[in-house]
Amino acid sequence: MADFKTKYFTMKEEDAIAYSKSILNFFDPNAKLTCKEIGDGNLNYVFRLVDEANNKSLILKQAGPIARISDEFKLSPDRNRIESEILALQGKLAPGLVPKMYHYDPIMNCFAMDDLSDHQIMRAALIEHKKFPLFADHISTFLVNTLLLTSDVVMDHKEKKELVGDFINPELCEISEDLVYTEPFYDCPRNDVFEGSREFVKEHIWKDEKLQLETAKLKFEFMTNAQSLIHGDLHTGSVFIKEDSTKVIDPEFAFYGPAGYDVGNVIANLIFAYVNGKFTISDNAARDDFTTYIENTIKDIVDLFKEKFIKAWDENATERVAKYEGYREYYLDNLLRDTAAVTGLELCRRIIGLAHVKDITSIQDKDARTKAEKIALTIGKTCILQRQTMKTGNDYVSLVKDTQQRF
Amino acid sequence: MADFKTKYFTMKEEDAIAYSKSILNFFDPNAKLTCKEIGDGNLNYVFRLVDEANNKSLILKQAGPIARISDEFKLSPDRNRIESEILALQGKLAPGLVPKMYHYDPIMNCFAMDDLSDHQIMRAALIEHKKFPLFADHISTFLVNTLLLTSDVVMDHKEKKELVGDFINPELCEISEDLVYTEPFYDCPRNDVFEGSREFVKEHIWKDEKLQLETAKLKFEFMTNAQSLIHGDLHTGSVFIKEDSTKVIDPEFAFYGPAGYDVGNVIANLIFAYVNGKFTISDNAARDDFTTYIENTIKDIVDLFKEKFIKAWDENATERVAKYEGYREYYLDNLLRDTAAVTGLELCRRIIGLAHVKDITSIQDKDARTKAEKIALTIGKTCILQRQTMKTGNDYVSLVKDTQQRF
Repeated sequence: MADFKTKYFTMKEEDAIAYSKSILNFFDPNAKLTCKEIGDGNLNYVFRLVDEANNKSLILKQAGPIARISDEFKLSPDRNRIESEILALQGKLAPGLVPKMYHYDPIMNCFAMDDLSDHQIMRAALIEHKKFPLFADHISTFLVNTLLLTSDVVMDHKEKKELVGDFINPELCEISEDLVYTEPFYDCPRNDVFEGSREFVKEHIWKDEKLQLETAKLKFEFMTNAQSLIHGDLHTGSVFIKEDSTKVIDPEFAFYGPAGYDVGNVIANLIFAYVNGKFTISDNAARDDFTTYIENTIKDIVDLFKEKFIKAWDENATERVAKYEGYREYYLDNLLRDTAAVTGLELCRRIIGLAHVKDITSIQDKDARTKAEKIALTIGKTCILQRQTMKTGNDYVSLVKDTQQRF
Repeated sequence: MADFKTKYFTMKEEDAIAYSKSILNFFDPNAKLTCKEIGDGNLNYVFRLVDEANNKSLILKQAGPIARISDEFKLSPDRNRIESEILALQGKLAPGLVPKMYHYDPIMNCFAMDDLSDHQIMRAALIEHKKFPLFADHISTFLVNTLLLTSDVVMDHKEKKELVGDFINPELCEISEDLVYTEPFYDCPRNDVFEGSREFVKEHIWKDEKLQLETAKLKFEFMTNAQSLIHGDLHTGSVFIKEDSTKVIDPEFAFYGPAGYDVGNVIANLIFAYVNGKFTISDNAARDDFTTYIENTIKDIVDLFKEKFIKAWDENATERVAKYEGYREYYLDNLLRDTAAVTGLELCRRIIGLAHVKDITSIQDKDARTKAEKIALTIGKTCILQRQTMKTGNDYVSLVKDTQQRF
């Protein structure tokens, strides 16, 4: 049997079974287990272990030694510690909204967690134009609880600084710094621009020095503003969902950064779902139904976020100066400004940069995809440049609808 | 002989001699050493070891187990590691402007460094109204090199993040958060307000809700903005000086924070020296000579800082987006805004808060001291509220001169 206690190696399916039998105290010792590697991400191996006779299952997630996204990104498996620690913390801050974490193993760089196979990855579900009426409520709670409750507004400042140290995450942050904040905004060889959009990108993004200056300001804020313990990659591919349940997964990009980063990522990826609906649903009523659902969800997320944030602030703030007249409004205002900026960055980088989203790439018609990309880029650029003005759910919905009508 | 290799204990003078003989390879093995504890700070024991026959001497600095400032602040001796590591780093970034560091001992929580007994603590020298024409040049170099070269503008971002982790400094930061940003701005029992100034403080500081709101914004920036590896306590009591040499000492408050914090502390403490000169030098010509020297020094520090900062940026910036048109100006502008804010905070907190400066407390005449305090508080409040407008050396000199004439 493989030795799991001495030295890291990347597991195969049979190793995952042996591991769960010898290390995890989860399945019956005599259970007949099957295992399948189901990872579709770029960085990790994800094993689904099933004991069919007893109807039990578990996920074992192991960090690969090198990111599979590209050999250029070499990632230390320490991200697995970060992911398991933050899952445990988020599970306390936002109960029920992340998978349960069972076991972390610093030698094999793996951890075990709930099997969520009855859930679906939200991006895939949205591309099938499914609707999840509880999502806005769930995700706004997740965002408020994980972001506000890890900030200096609420936490003891010394404990918060220790957390900052625990979650320093140089390699994963570098990926975001490059792929989100830098490469999309100039003609970088690693970009991957759809042929139909190339001229538009050249003209409206790469030539815009004012836009570039704003991305520089935002990149430095991303690198220096240790505001909240953020998820760091909260797109719809990091959400497992079913009608009555939302689980945020894959927090391996977590670090102390600007709180608006997570909120903006959620909004941007809903805008991709909206654009996908616009261009792929042929039936008028069905299209309107889906896009209206997305509009309402975006609106609700922003407005519920604000409402819950203010309530949680009033209930939980411990920092004396945070209670000074006007500070809460100033803080939330800045958070919403950052939210708009990141919404814009995510919309641009998923069109121009290395990592695309299926909401857009699955649009088969070339002209439709070009239009969809121009809409996303135009909304994105506006969100970056006019981030001071994006303060309500309606601000987003109006921008999306107005922009969509121009193409 | 005491055992230095197993367990920390606070040394007496005879232990320091034994330590240097058994651990440090600095003095001749047969040298006759004398030792005197010369610490006048609150947190540490400072032993001066002298071999008179051979004209050699050394400083051994040991962190005490509990801050001597007050039993309320309990400080882990880890600050000694922070101090020795940053002295080594600053010695590389700003050669000749910090004492040479010889040896760090993580068990005894002490380190050895150059004996600077031929230098004088700058605050004491300024109270004697001595002038140091090279100080503006030296300190502006120190500030630019230590602040810019440790930022994301210049450093590899992954290495910078590791440094952020190494210099997380919860206990010392808490002291600054409390004593600089919080307590002076309300009627906190730990404040120590001179009787003559009490009404003025009540009326113009504690009742000013707009000022309080600004201190809240600044406190959160201090806690979250990991911009540069700052000294964290760069007042004139942290500078050893003689005519041709400036050495910045006592960096135990170091952490990644807003770069303007160090610059502002230097300026504020020169303003205290200016006010001291105004009220304690009776001879008109001598008074004008000294205060004009301080005015010119403040002016030169701000203007040389800007000039050297721009030059160092152009020579050393590695971050691509930092080179975008307009970003350098935006960055420097924010740094100068933070500088003004901290100038103001330091001026207020040294008058109102727990820790005073001798420049003010040594003014014997009660009315003169009251006037001096009102001037410092008025300049301080203006620097905080109008921090956006303080951009040149002349802005500071004009504010100081104008305010001084009003009292």
